[in-house]
Amino acid sequence: MLYYLFSYLDTTFDFPGAQVFQYISFRAAMAVITSLIISLYFGKRWIGYLNRRQVGETIRDLGLEGQVEKQGTPTMGGLIILASLIIPTLLFAQLNNTYVILMLFTSVWLGGLGFLDDYIKVFKKDKKGLPGKTKIMGQVVLGLVVAAVMYFDDSIVLREKPQNIGQVIENVTSEGISSRFLVEETRVTKTTIPFIKNNEFDYAVLLKWIGPGYQKWAFLVFIPIIIFIITAVSNGANLTDGMDGLAVGTSAIIGTTLGILAWVSGNIIFADYLNIMYLPNTGELTIFISAFVGANIGFLWYNSYPAQVFMGDTGSLALGGIIAVFAIVIRKELLIPILCGIFLAESLSVLIQVSWFKYTRKKYGVGRRVFKMSPLHHHYQKLGYSEPKIVLRFFIVGVILAVITIITLKLR
Amino acid sequence: MLYYLFSYLDTTFDFPGAQVFQYISFRAAMAVITSLIISLYFGKRWIGYLNRRQVGETIRDLGLEGQVEKQGTPTMGGLIILASLIIPTLLFAQLNNTYVILMLFTSVWLGGLGFLDDYIKVFKKDKKGLPGKTKIMGQVVLGLVVAAVMYFDDSIVLREKPQNIGQVIENVTSEGISSRFLVEETRVTKTTIPFIKNNEFDYAVLLKWIGPGYQKWAFLVFIPIIIFIITAVSNGANLTDGMDGLAVGTSAIIGTTLGILAWVSGNIIFADYLNIMYLPNTGELTIFISAFVGANIGFLWYNSYPAQVFMGDTGSLALGGIIAVFAIVIRKELLIPILCGIFLAESLSVLIQVSWFKYTRKKYGVGRRVFKMSPLHHHYQKLGYSEPKIVLRFFIVGVILAVITIITLKLR
Repeated sequence: MLYYLFSYLDTTFDFPGAQVFQYISFRAAMAVITSLIISLYFGKRWIGYLNRRQVGETIRDLGLEGQVEKQGTPTMGGLIILASLIIPTLLFAQLNNTYVILMLFTSVWLGGLGFLDDYIKVFKKDKKGLPGKTKIMGQVVLGLVVAAVMYFDDSIVLREKPQNIGQVIENVTSEGISSRFLVEETRVTKTTIPFIKNNEFDYAVLLKWIGPGYQKWAFLVFIPIIIFIITAVSNGANLTDGMDGLAVGTSAIIGTTLGILAWVSGNIIFADYLNIMYLPNTGELTIFISAFVGANIGFLWYNSYPAQVFMGDTGSLALGGIIAVFAIVIRKELLIPILCGIFLAESLSVLIQVSWFKYTRKKYGVGRRVFKMSPLHHHYQKLGYSEPKIVLRFFIVGVILAVITIITLKLR
Repeated sequence: MLYYLFSYLDTTFDFPGAQVFQYISFRAAMAVITSLIISLYFGKRWIGYLNRRQVGETIRDLGLEGQVEKQGTPTMGGLIILASLIIPTLLFAQLNNTYVILMLFTSVWLGGLGFLDDYIKVFKKDKKGLPGKTKIMGQVVLGLVVAAVMYFDDSIVLREKPQNIGQVIENVTSEGISSRFLVEETRVTKTTIPFIKNNEFDYAVLLKWIGPGYQKWAFLVFIPIIIFIITAVSNGANLTDGMDGLAVGTSAIIGTTLGILAWVSGNIIFADYLNIMYLPNTGELTIFISAFVGANIGFLWYNSYPAQVFMGDTGSLALGGIIAVFAIVIRKELLIPILCGIFLAESLSVLIQVSWFKYTRKKYGVGRRVFKMSPLHHHYQKLGYSEPKIVLRFFIVGVILAVITIITLKLR
């Protein structure tokens, strides 16, 4: 909202300094600072309130070291993350930007879903929380909304560099630097894919077998893929949230990487230089993701080992969903298996553990295990590593994955 | 060295793929990966060797929690950092680049100085190690070398955008993007300073009072300033190295920031877009600093709480010195008080503690303390915070300081 205020001040009164609000970099920086202030200052008060209300997490007995200490640590800290994500976005982003609206919707929708879950667990004392089916339904609905907006909204456009001769428009930026991109395309199901020529893939190609005119039906593959990605990443983040600071720190690393990708994709000069898709208006997303990173870092302050607060499903469902939707809108969702490798490994460890246990129980009568315990972080804990060491090493792996993700942009 | 091999393959045989070695981003990525492999793989073996040789740290009794556990943890792990910093640089950087040579010299020089110190402590069982005077002398000599090269070497140049009408040369990059910078300047004592117009400051101005021709004597102020910066940062890093993972993690954050600054300063398109000094050939430094970041992250793997190895003075003297010299050569050394705020706070806490204690002892007969203990991290430990929490929070502050440092580029 401040964006509009300062634009008004700038154009109407030529107010000194108001022009700086035009810069995405400046507003992104303000968003980080504001989200840090909210999460650090109000986070402390919120934790105090939760402690007084005794909104404690009921810890399942997993026979792990240090588990008893965690009993009674307040949960629903995810509200701190949501507040320090949404408020700075409302203050500093352009609110008529479709991408920004979509991200705000995602945050509120999944945050609300997770909050319901936590609320039932904590206040209704019903340990099961929201039925699994309801959660999945919520994610499916979100996927439908995202896919529909991405496909049918006319403000979601894409420009690429001419590969062959094509209709070309000349863009001259205010700096006098010129670059050439193809005309705008809408209703595209194209995305970025590493390792292959042009780093580009069109989901519509999957329908080539139905013959001519297949492009018209592209949304038929686009929608289920998007639903799958949102559900997978959201649950991956949920599983990762089992050690102090792990999910939130990993999300901060992923968010920073997504921020860089959004910034370069939405900047015509950088998109030109790096030879990637130019996505007009996605630069504004940098402000949202900056607030996201600030919110995660601020929450990590209290959530790091030994944690003073847990995020609960309020936080962890939203974290993964936001990451998934953000990656989708900047058309980098096929990089998720690398970028969100931690979430993937945690999910796979559960899948492998459960499947192998069931299979061996059927075959040998006794179930066998691949990991000492799943999700993966508990495996290392059972191996004798201390919790802060596991978390920091997962962060290091996360940083390495982030670097690899950025490198793939150049590999073709 | 691989750079030359592949350049040769490219130009002589038109070897497929060899051209990719021309890209700084590709070589920087290779440098990170190589330094991670060296530090993670050889780090493990080196720690095993040190353990067998019983190269343990003698821990002073500070009455801190968990201190006894640290007794016997092997030290001199700094050699892991140095190896995983120097080897990738030799492999992937252009070795006839003055900046790269200067950074390699700094690493070997300070690493050697620290190694001597550790060697005397560990093998000669002389707890005092190298005399303080010798260490300072080593840092002063380094400062003299750096200042002399920076001032007198003709390959160290600077280009700026024309502020007024001046002699202008046109640069057209391979991408066809043109930008205009002033002709090259050598023997300049200019640097970047935040908050003021043009973000620029010339140390020579400090000599204006001696009248016309004062620019000729600029090196007279340049040299002592550089010596002071190197000594201060080097000792700051040394003081910070008192908690598992603290110094090395902080250095990784600082290194990443310096890498971004070096990359944009050495890239004519980005320097133009961001309106900062264009420093030809500093792009090559990105490869060095990538190896530096990789080395720190790899070492953090073993050095994080609870640490399996300490870096010793071999590491900590070099870390600070490398950061200082790197910031100086990319002319961003006046950003150090912000970027290296952790080192600064640690140094100041010692300074304040000691001075106040001496002052009050003189005045009241009994010395008083400002902090429960100095350096600062021990103050929080005495307040009851756990070691991994303090370290992670210092990292968070480090990240915030890094963001602020980058923002200052835009503030003028």
